[in-house]
Amino acid sequence: MDVAERIHEANQRFMEAIRAGDSATMPSLYTSDATILPPNSDAVSGGDAIVEYRQAFFDLGIAAAQPETLEVIPMGEYALEVGEYSLFGDDQTLTDRGKIMVLWKNEGGASKMHRDTWNSSLPPPET
Amino acid sequence: MDVAERIHEANQRFMEAIRAGDSATMPSLYTSDATILPPNSDAVSGGDAIVEYRQAFFDLGIAAAQPETLEVIPMGEYALEVGEYSLFGDDQTLTDRGKIMVLWKNEGGASKMHRDTWNSSLPPPET
Repeated sequence: MDVAERIHEANQRFMEAIRAGDSATMPSLYTSDATILPPNSDAVSGGDAIVEYRQAFFDLGIAAAQPETLEVIPMGEYALEVGEYSLFGDDQTLTDRGKIMVLWKNEGGASKMHRDTWNSSLPPPET
Repeated sequence: MDVAERIHEANQRFMEAIRAGDSATMPSLYTSDATILPPNSDAVSGGDAIVEYRQAFFDLGIAAAQPETLEVIPMGEYALEVGEYSLFGDDQTLTDRGKIMVLWKNEGGASKMHRDTWNSSLPPPET
């Protein structure tokens, strides 16, 4: 498998974990010293903290996530992915769509998320 | 200069361009095929479109931006920067603070932004 295929495979497992509400799978998708940069939050570092963040995310009623890879830039042991995502609630309605930027790192032949950020493409809520 | 110093130098020029409301400097800070992923917007690709996006940003009354690099991961011709930013309005009040993730690319000895995204760390506006 080349790096784009490894990233695709990891994204499938990520999507499946969200569909199943399975936050326990999350640590295997991230490096041990991973950091995520979620919108409207400070950065979250390390496997346990990332699982906790994702659990809160499931508790918001996110039923499914659809990531789409637009670009993979291979850089030796690392690769940068740029893509888009759509989030769906329990009733299959689109709750958000946006963009992702992920630095993947090769760990023992598997591609794992090392630095992971995203933001919405929708207008901000009316205030 | 090592890559961290080159990134620091480019960030100084970026900050100065924002302070001066000088969107014409922007293209020299980005690769010719750069893409930015701004919050609440679709991705914006290419020098002209990025200048136009930044001009709209100046028109919102952003007087100063303070970026802070937390981490640089060198990857050959590329480097990933993770950091934080603060934005200040005309009256020096903090209007936003958040996180950045930038893929820098070496072009002719200069580090240029190739993929650039950010999001706010503040809570979303009350609806």
